[in-house]
Amino acid sequence: MYDFSYCAPTKVCFGRGSEEQLEGLIAERKCKCVLLHYGGESAVRSGLIKRVRWALERAGAAVVELGGVKPNPRLSLVNEGIKLCKDKGVDFILAVGGGSVIDSAKAIGMGCVGGGDVWDYYCKKRVPQGTIPVGVVLTIAAAGSEMSKSSVITNDKTATKCGVNAELSRPVFAIMNPELTASVPAYPTACGCADILMHTLERYLTGGETLKLTDSIAEALMTTVISSSKAVMRDLSNYEARANLMWASSLSHNGLTGLGNDGGDWCTHSLGHELSALYDTPHGAALTAVWGSWARYVYKNCLNRFHRFAVQVMGVRPNGTCGELALKGIEAAEEWFAGMGLPTSIKQLGVKPTEADLKLMAEKCAANNGGSKGSCMKLHVEDMLAIYTAANK
Amino acid sequence: MYDFSYCAPTKVCFGRGSEEQLEGLIAERKCKCVLLHYGGESAVRSGLIKRVRWALERAGAAVVELGGVKPNPRLSLVNEGIKLCKDKGVDFILAVGGGSVIDSAKAIGMGCVGGGDVWDYYCKKRVPQGTIPVGVVLTIAAAGSEMSKSSVITNDKTATKCGVNAELSRPVFAIMNPELTASVPAYPTACGCADILMHTLERYLTGGETLKLTDSIAEALMTTVISSSKAVMRDLSNYEARANLMWASSLSHNGLTGLGNDGGDWCTHSLGHELSALYDTPHGAALTAVWGSWARYVYKNCLNRFHRFAVQVMGVRPNGTCGELALKGIEAAEEWFAGMGLPTSIKQLGVKPTEADLKLMAEKCAANNGGSKGSCMKLHVEDMLAIYTAANK
Repeated sequence: MYDFSYCAPTKVCFGRGSEEQLEGLIAERKCKCVLLHYGGESAVRSGLIKRVRWALERAGAAVVELGGVKPNPRLSLVNEGIKLCKDKGVDFILAVGGGSVIDSAKAIGMGCVGGGDVWDYYCKKRVPQGTIPVGVVLTIAAAGSEMSKSSVITNDKTATKCGVNAELSRPVFAIMNPELTASVPAYPTACGCADILMHTLERYLTGGETLKLTDSIAEALMTTVISSSKAVMRDLSNYEARANLMWASSLSHNGLTGLGNDGGDWCTHSLGHELSALYDTPHGAALTAVWGSWARYVYKNCLNRFHRFAVQVMGVRPNGTCGELALKGIEAAEEWFAGMGLPTSIKQLGVKPTEADLKLMAEKCAANNGGSKGSCMKLHVEDMLAIYTAANK
Repeated sequence: MYDFSYCAPTKVCFGRGSEEQLEGLIAERKCKCVLLHYGGESAVRSGLIKRVRWALERAGAAVVELGGVKPNPRLSLVNEGIKLCKDKGVDFILAVGGGSVIDSAKAIGMGCVGGGDVWDYYCKKRVPQGTIPVGVVLTIAAAGSEMSKSSVITNDKTATKCGVNAELSRPVFAIMNPELTASVPAYPTACGCADILMHTLERYLTGGETLKLTDSIAEALMTTVISSSKAVMRDLSNYEARANLMWASSLSHNGLTGLGNDGGDWCTHSLGHELSALYDTPHGAALTAVWGSWARYVYKNCLNRFHRFAVQVMGVRPNGTCGELALKGIEAAEEWFAGMGLPTSIKQLGVKPTEADLKLMAEKCAANNGGSKGSCMKLHVEDMLAIYTAANK
């Protein structure tokens, strides 16, 4: 095992009607001017945005609104938000939505402190020095950004998707009412389930040492995500399943499921990000489209972990060689993806990259990761191209 | 499942040599005067206290020392600490030790703010209003106080052991170097393992609703504690086992393993506290001495949970009725205790209470809990007496 530091200070308010705690949380912080940041029309239509605005006003805060965040959130809107916050003297950002809205809010928060171009943080030219505090009202279980230190933004001028990890960007509070996710349709729900599992799987399938307790917690989380995903796909209004997925989304990316490990692999995320950057595909679907091809490319270098994943998480019966079981585990994971209607190839994503497109993605993926990436196996540009090519079926 | 709030903001610095981070942590907080609070002679003899004192001084803080904390920490020493902190203008308390030292430090911290008698907080007459911040250098894996909101103190004038739960008392940082626990002898190590398991078991064996994800994480933690305890009892210097137990101690009592549950049962703790208050017995051993008798008294009211515990945690083969399996699980847990050299009865604790003593403990136990306690089964004074009597063999 490796040494680690860990601090996940986000205050979680979980359960039915928990958004009613918003007024108290904002009043307690004595916020003067809040940026109310959100995505598309569904939160407006449902009346949630209106209720949130009232709560902010009752708490004595002025409210500035910036909606329109899209999946794979754009740098252009982030820059608009930064300007707005500076112009209006915003001292708190409230993200009402899922990972895209929260990541965008974090970017705005960090961009308001220290000057310069916020994109510098995302392409690792500078390290963020501070942030306007961010709070969350979560409306979809997926990215885990509500407790994480991560933010991923797409530069819409260059079609580049990059992430920053900064402890200071962990939200100060997260309001999580599973009822608010009951209206999320099947496909984005499935994408969310895949994203939740993948945040732990990237940490779990690693070539380095691990901590036994972390491994067993990771397995507990992944098996719960799989069983809850099946329950929620049968009945989208299943509160218990929605609650388990929502809490799993937070625990899967707040760091807990990788403590004592080497940091994890994260190649599936990097490969998926290039697909999303080029084709604007949903994040969770981009991950499942490449995961199987990545797994078959690397598993022999990391046989024990893939074997363990097969038996402990996917429930593969332990009859066979390590290699056979590892492959059965990969197949079982793909069957789970497919069972939720998620793609297991790039073509199933509905896009048709040419060979030149695949080469471009591999080159950008390598460049965005300093030439190579991975823990199960260190991938270079030619490996990335081979995986994209295998996945392009 | 129930709604919940959760915030575990303690910064964890985990791994070999992590006490070297102390200077930076204290300097960052700009502490002027630190109370260095510790227990017996072992931390002095090992040179740890000297190294810690130097680190505090290098960080620019004046240092006031108060050693001598004993297991089942005493109110008299807490009051001495409060006076010392007020006299010297202490603005930070560093606890170097295990649960007793940390609980004592929390009591001193809370007692310095708001005036009045600190014992009022422990007998629920008043609610703590603030605290001097507390940091921890952990030297034994057991109580989990390094991340918890709990503090348990014994009033040495009245032989009463009571606890307070206050979010504000969670330590601000916890330095956890498993190497520092390698010198803990077998018996206190075993007591620690029992205490760690019990903090999750009290939350897990409950009559109320639960959250699936929490259940599976609780099971993952308990199975890891059991396997790591066996490894550490075979070789007390096993770093991996010590590390798993240390991290389990924190996760088992920081709240994580009970989220969405009804708060848990906690009768074993209450019954054990009276034994420790009267006979000054080690906390972990007092718990194992009464647990089996408690479990056999209540399990029929909570059959599904005991059944699940037997199969998922104790590895009982699922052949038999629910009731049979539940009993086998109780037996297996007692075998685990006994295998570590821990008592499974009050007599094995080395004390010989009379019938009058048992009655006194039952009456105090009921009185300290407002007349009754429990989730698997609500116990009143006659139930408590019956359990003490059954355990007194």
